[in-house]
Amino acid sequence: FFSHTRLHKCLLVVCIFGTGDLGRSLGQRLLQSGYRLVYGSRKPHSCGPIPPGAQVMSHEAAAQSTSLVFVCVHREHYDFLETLAPQLNGKFLVDVSNNLEKNMYPEANAEYLQRLIPGAHVVKAFNTLSAWALQNGPSDANRQVYLCGNNPEAKQAVAVISTKLGFTVQDRGSLSAARELEDFPLQLFPEWRLPMRLTVGLTAFFFFYLLTRDVIYAYVNEGRDISFRIMMSLANKVFPSVSLILLSLCYLPGVIAGFFQLYRGTKYKRFPDWLDRWMLCRKQLGLIALALASLHVLYTLIIPIRYYVRFRLAGSTISQVKDNNKTSSFDTTMAWRTDSYYSIGALGFGLYLLLGISSLPSVSNALSWREFSFIQSKLGYLTLFFCTFHTYLYGWDRFLYVSQYKWYSPPGYMLCLVVPSLVLVFKLLLLLPCVDKSLSRIRQGWERTDPENDSKKKSLLA
Amino acid sequence: FFSHTRLHKCLLVVCIFGTGDLGRSLGQRLLQSGYRLVYGSRKPHSCGPIPPGAQVMSHEAAAQSTSLVFVCVHREHYDFLETLAPQLNGKFLVDVSNNLEKNMYPEANAEYLQRLIPGAHVVKAFNTLSAWALQNGPSDANRQVYLCGNNPEAKQAVAVISTKLGFTVQDRGSLSAARELEDFPLQLFPEWRLPMRLTVGLTAFFFFYLLTRDVIYAYVNEGRDISFRIMMSLANKVFPSVSLILLSLCYLPGVIAGFFQLYRGTKYKRFPDWLDRWMLCRKQLGLIALALASLHVLYTLIIPIRYYVRFRLAGSTISQVKDNNKTSSFDTTMAWRTDSYYSIGALGFGLYLLLGISSLPSVSNALSWREFSFIQSKLGYLTLFFCTFHTYLYGWDRFLYVSQYKWYSPPGYMLCLVVPSLVLVFKLLLLLPCVDKSLSRIRQGWERTDPENDSKKKSLLA
Amino acid sequence: FFSHTRLHKCLLVVCIFGTGDLGRSLGQRLLQSGYRLVYGSRKPHSCGPIPPGAQVMSHEAAAQSTSLVFVCVHREHYDFLETLAPQLNGKFLVDVSNNLEKNMYPEANAEYLQRLIPGAHVVKAFNTLSAWALQNGPSDANRQVYLCGNNPEAKQAVAVISTKLGFTVQDRGSLSAARELEDFPLQLFPEWRLPMRLTVGLTAFFFFYLLTRDVIYAYVNEGRDISFRIMMSLANKVFPSVSLILLSLCYLPGVIAGFFQLYRGTKYKRFPDWLDRWMLCRKQLGLIALALASLHVLYTLIIPIRYYVRFRLAGSTISQVKDNNKTSSFDTTMAWRTDSYYSIGALGFGLYLLLGISSLPSVSNALSWREFSFIQSKLGYLTLFFCTFHTYLYGWDRFLYVSQYKWYSPPGYMLCLVVPSLVLVFKLLLLLPCVDKSLSRIRQGWERTDPENDSKKKSLLA
Repeated sequence: FFSHTRLHKCLLVVCIFGTGDLGRSLGQRLLQSGYRLVYGSRKPHSCGPIPPGAQVMSHEAAAQSTSLVFVCVHREHYDFLETLAPQLNGKFLVDVSNNLEKNMYPEANAEYLQRLIPGAHVVKAFNTLSAWALQNGPSDANRQVYLCGNNPEAKQAVAVISTKLGFTVQDRGSLSAARELEDFPLQLFPEWRLPMRLTVGLTAFFFFYLLTRDVIYAYVNEGRDISFRIMMSLANKVFPSVSLILLSLCYLPGVIAGFFQLYRGTKYKRFPDWLDRWMLCRKQLGLIALALASLHVLYTLIIPIRYYVRFRLAGSTISQVKDNNKTSSFDTTMAWRTDSYYSIGALGFGLYLLLGISSLPSVSNALSWREFSFIQSKLGYLTLFFCTFHTYLYGWDRFLYVSQYKWYSPPGYMLCLVVPSLVLVFKLLLLLPCVDKSLSRIRQGWERTDPENDSKKKSLLA
Repeated sequence: FFSHTRLHKCLLVVCIFGTGDLGRSLGQRLLQSGYRLVYGSRKPHSCGPIPPGAQVMSHEAAAQSTSLVFVCVHREHYDFLETLAPQLNGKFLVDVSNNLEKNMYPEANAEYLQRLIPGAHVVKAFNTLSAWALQNGPSDANRQVYLCGNNPEAKQAVAVISTKLGFTVQDRGSLSAARELEDFPLQLFPEWRLPMRLTVGLTAFFFFYLLTRDVIYAYVNEGRDISFRIMMSLANKVFPSVSLILLSLCYLPGVIAGFFQLYRGTKYKRFPDWLDRWMLCRKQLGLIALALASLHVLYTLIIPIRYYVRFRLAGSTISQVKDNNKTSSFDTTMAWRTDSYYSIGALGFGLYLLLGISSLPSVSNALSWREFSFIQSKLGYLTLFFCTFHTYLYGWDRFLYVSQYKWYSPPGYMLCLVVPSLVLVFKLLLLLPCVDKSLSRIRQGWERTDPENDSKKKSLLA
Repeated sequence: FFSHTRLHKCLLVVCIFGTGDLGRSLGQRLLQSGYRLVYGSRKPHSCGPIPPGAQVMSHEAAAQSTSLVFVCVHREHYDFLETLAPQLNGKFLVDVSNNLEKNMYPEANAEYLQRLIPGAHVVKAFNTLSAWALQNGPSDANRQVYLCGNNPEAKQAVAVISTKLGFTVQDRGSLSAARELEDFPLQLFPEWRLPMRLTVGLTAFFFFYLLTRDVIYAYVNEGRDISFRIMMSLANKVFPSVSLILLSLCYLPGVIAGFFQLYRGTKYKRFPDWLDRWMLCRKQLGLIALALASLHVLYTLIIPIRYYVRFRLAGSTISQVKDNNKTSSFDTTMAWRTDSYYSIGALGFGLYLLLGISSLPSVSNALSWREFSFIQSKLGYLTLFFCTFHTYLYGWDRFLYVSQYKWYSPPGYMLCLVVPSLVLVFKLLLLLPCVDKSLSRIRQGWERTDPENDSKKKSLLA
C-alpha cells in the first residue's frame, strides 16, 4: 500500500524540464488541472514564452521544489541531466521523448535516462500523445496513456496525474518495455498489415489464375486477343472473389473458437496464438472485404456503358434481325434467375454497408455490447449467407458443363465458394439445438470437467 | 445541504466486495483517480490478482475501513452479506449487478440487497457499463452512469465518484427505478422498434398492393406470367414508396408541433405523448428511409444489365427495323422529362446522403446547434421537396389515363405522394410571413395569453 | 505566480445567479464534480426547482458566501446586479450569456457587466456550450471552453473549474475578445464559406461555358435544339470538372508551402495570410470535391437508362442493319482505352471515398498523426493522379481534332486539367531526391542561414 500522503504532496507541485512545444502544452494542461507548475531552464530569464501561472527556475532549484519531473527534452540533450543527479535522487522522472526513426540508439531513451540518474525512478509515459493532444485534453480515440517503469509508486503517481488530465492509463510493465512504447508513434497501421498481405496474396492469385483461364486460354486455343478485358471484366471477377473469401475469413475464427470451447469444455483456457491474432484482425478483414465489394458493385454498374458490351449487344440484335429463323424467345426461368441474382447481391451489399457503418468508431461506441454483437454476428452471418447465395446463383448450373473447366481447372467463382460454404456449414452445426445449448453454458462460465473447481472459483468471486 | 466534510472523508477510501473482472476493472480506475482502495474477500490471502496499490482484507475489516462499498458480486451470492449487516449499517452500498435475462427474479437486485441490509443506503449504479468501459474510462457514447437510490447523500457521493472517474451522471430517482436500470443492458435497439414496425407494415402493404395490381392483374386479365418481376421491378417500386413516406413522416411531427404551438400560443405546454414519442424516433425513421432510398438507387442502376430489359430493348429495335413504316422519332419533351426525373432524383439522393452523414454521432457532435438544425430542417425539407418532385415527374400525366387505374385502384406512386404533399403544403403554410413571425416569437419564449404571467416568469429567471 | 491557497478556497463554494435552464444544468454538473453550490435568487423561497444538494439564498448572501459567481441571467436583467456592486467587489464574475442576433447591443455582454460592476473581475466563458452540454459533460466535439478576461487569476480559476467539469480551455485574451466569443454560437459553417463560394463560382463558370459551347453552338450553327441535355449531360460535365479542380486546390497550397520553405530555408517563418487561410480550408475543399465526384458517378451510371441514350443506341443499330456495307468492326484499342478510362475512374473514386471516410471526426481521431498524414498526403496525391489520368484518358487524342475547338474555345475537360497537371508536376519536382532531402531537413527544424542561431535555439529547448 502506497503512502498516499506522499502521493498527494507530490501532486501539488510538478516540474517540467524543457520549454519547447511539448513542455508548454503539457504545462498548460497541468495548470488548468489545478497543479502548481515550475519550469526548469538553463536560462530562467530568457527561456521564451511559458504559460501564465507557471514559474521558471534553474534546473537545480526546480528539481528541488518537487518530487515529480517531466523531462521534455530531446534525448541528445539528456547528458546535462547527469549533473543534476544529486537533486534528482529519489525523484520520479517522467520520460516523454520520442525518436525520429526506429533503432536510432542501442537502448530506449527512458533506459538511457535511468542509467544516467540511477537514483531517480524513471517512468516512460505520454510519448504516444502529441503536444496538441496534451494541450487540448483527450479525444475519444486519443485518450490512452501507456506507461512503464520499475517503481510502482512512481507509476501510480504518473497514473493519477494522467487520469486527472483526463487520460486513461495502461500499465505496460517494467522499464524494459520502454523501447516498445517508443516505437508506437513510428508505426503505420500495424493492425492492417496481416489483412493487407492476405488481400494482396489472394488478389494476385486470382488475377493470374483468371488471366490464364480467360485471356491466355483464349489466345492460345482460339487465337483471339481479349486482353482488353483485364481492365474491367477480369478485375470484376477478382474483386468479388477476394471480397467473399475475406468476409468468410472474418467469421471462420469465431466458428473455430466455438469448436475449441466445445472440445475443451471451458472458456477459461486461452486460444492458440494464431487464433488470437486472427480474431484481432477481423474488423480489418471485413473492411477490406467491404472496399472490394464496393468496387465490384461499381464495376458491375459500369458494364452497360462499356464500348465492348454495347458492341456485343448491337451485334446480337443485328444477327437476330438477319437470321429470321432464330428468333430467341423470352426465357422466364432465366429472368427469375438473373433478377434473383442481382436482387440478392444488392441486398447483400446493403447489409455489408450496414456492417461497415456500424464499425465506424462513433457508431460502434453508441451501441451497447448486446447491440454490437447482434449486428456483427447475426447480421454478419446473414450478409455472408446473402453473398454466398449470390455467388451460387451466378454459378447456377454452369458446373455441369465440361466447357467451363478450361485446361481442367475450375472457374474462379467455384474456388471462392469453398471457404464461405464451409463457414456456413460449420455455423449451422454450432446452431444445432444440442450444440448451441452446451456452447451457451460454456460461454456463461460453466466448465465441464471439475464441478468442485467450479464452485471454488465462484466463491472466490465473492 | 449535505455535510461535505463527510462526503470528502468517504471519498478517500472506498471498498470493493468481489475481485472478479468488474471489481478489478473498477478498482484499477478508482486507484488511478486517486482513491485509496480496499478489497473485501472471503479468503484475503488467496483471492487472485488485484490491481497494484490496493489492499485485500476480510469482508468485515474492509467494510469497517470505509463508508462506501461497491458490491461487485453476483446476485446469487448476496446472502453472505446478511452476516455483515452490523458492519454495513449506515454505509453507502453501490449495487452494480446485472442479470442474464429479464424477470429472472421477483424484485430488482438492488432492492433485494436493500432488504437484506436494511440499515445500509443502497444505490444502484454503473450496471450499464462494461468492465472494459470502467477500466478504460468513458468514451463519447459510453459515458452515462444511471443511478437511483433512496438516500440523497448516498447518491451524491456516488455521483461525485462517477464524475471523478470521468462519467456523466443521470439520476433516475428512488430505488424502485432499479428494475428499469437493470433492464437497460438487456434491451436491443429499443428506439428502433416503432420505426421498424412501421417500415415492415408499410413494406408489406405496398408489396401486396403492387403484387395484386401488377403480377396478379396481368395473370388474371391477360394470362401472362410476369412473376419474375417480383425480384427487381416490384421491389424497386416498394422501396422508394416506403422511403418517401418514411421521410415525410420525419417532418410531419415538426409541422404538427408548429400548429399545436400556434393554437396554444405558448411553447411551455407539453405536447401529447404520441407526438413526443413520434418526435423522438425521427432520426431512426430518416435512417431507414435513407437505407430504402439507397436500395432504390442500386436497383435502378442495375436495370440496364437485366436480362429482361435487354431482351425488351432488342425486341423493340428489331420491330422498328422490320416495321419500316413505324420509325419512332425523337421526342424532346420526353427527353427533358426523363432527364429531369433522373437528375432531380440524383440530387435528392445526394442531399439524403448528406442528411445521413450529418446524423453520424461524431459529425453531429461537431456541429453547433444552429448548424445541426440548419441541416436537419432546411436541407431536410429541400430533400423532401426534391424526392416528392422526383415522384411527380415519374407520374407526369399518367394520372390522366384510365388504363392506369387497374381494378379501379390508383397506382402505387400516387398513394405514396399523399403524405409528403400534405407535409410540404402544411410547411408552406407555416412559412407564410405572418404565421412564421408569430411562431418564431412563441419559440423564443413569448406567450400569447397572459402578459403579466410572462414578466413574472422572466423575473424568476434572475 | 498565483496564490494557490486562494484558488483552492474559491473552488470549494461557487455561486450561480439565475435558476433557469442554464443555471440548473451548470449547477448539477458542479455538484457532481464535488463543488459546494449556492444559488442567488430574488425570491429564495419560491424560485422553482434547483438540483438537490444546492442551497438558495438572496443575491446578497450568496455573493458574500463565495468568491466566484456564474451569472446565468439574460443581459436585459443585468441592471439589478449594479445594486450588488459592494458584495461583488473583488469577486470573479463569469458571464455565460449569449444574444439572439449579432450586433444587438453596442458592447459585448461581458464588457457591459464589467462596466456595471467595475470592482469585479469579469471572465467571459461557457457561452459556446448549451445547457445540455453543460449538464452532460463534454462530448468529443463539444469540449472546448473559450474564455477571455482581464484578470489572469480569475481566468485561471475559471480554467481549473472548466477542466474539472471535463472541458478543455482555450484562452482568447483580454475581455475585449468577448464580442468575438459571443458571436461564435451565431455563426453558420464559417469555415465552409470560402470553399462554397469558390464552388459556386467555378460551377457557374463551367455551366455557362459548356452551355455556350454545346447547347447554344448547336442551336446557332446547326439549328438543333439539344437543350434537354442540360439536365444530365451538361451537369455530368460540370460536376467532374469542378470536382477535379477543387481536389487539386486541396493539394496546391501544400506544394506552394514547400516551395516557400525551400526558398526561405526555414520552417519557422510564418506563411503569408492567404496561404494560411487556404490551408485551413483544405478539408472543406476536399469534401465538396468528393460530393461533386459522387454526383458525377451517379450521373454516369444513370446514362444507360436515359431515353436519349436508348434512342440513339437503337438508331445506330438500325442504321447498321440497313446499311449492310457499313458493318463496324470491333476496335480493340477503343476497348482498351474506354475500359481503362472507366477502371481508373472507379479506382480513383474508391480512393476519394477512402479520403472522405478518413476525414470523419471519429475515424481521423483514431489515427495517429503519422497515419493521418499518410492517408491525406500519399493517398491524396494518388487520388489526384488517378482522377487526372482518368480525365486524360477521356480526352485521349481529341485535342488533335479542330472540330473540338468550337468557336475557337477549348473543350471543358482541357480547362479543368490545367491546375491538377500543374500540381502534379510541382509535386514531382519536390519529390526529386535532392529537393526532397533538403525539404525534409527543413521540416525537421534545420535552418539554412545561420548555424549559430540554430544551435542557440536547440539549447533553449533544454
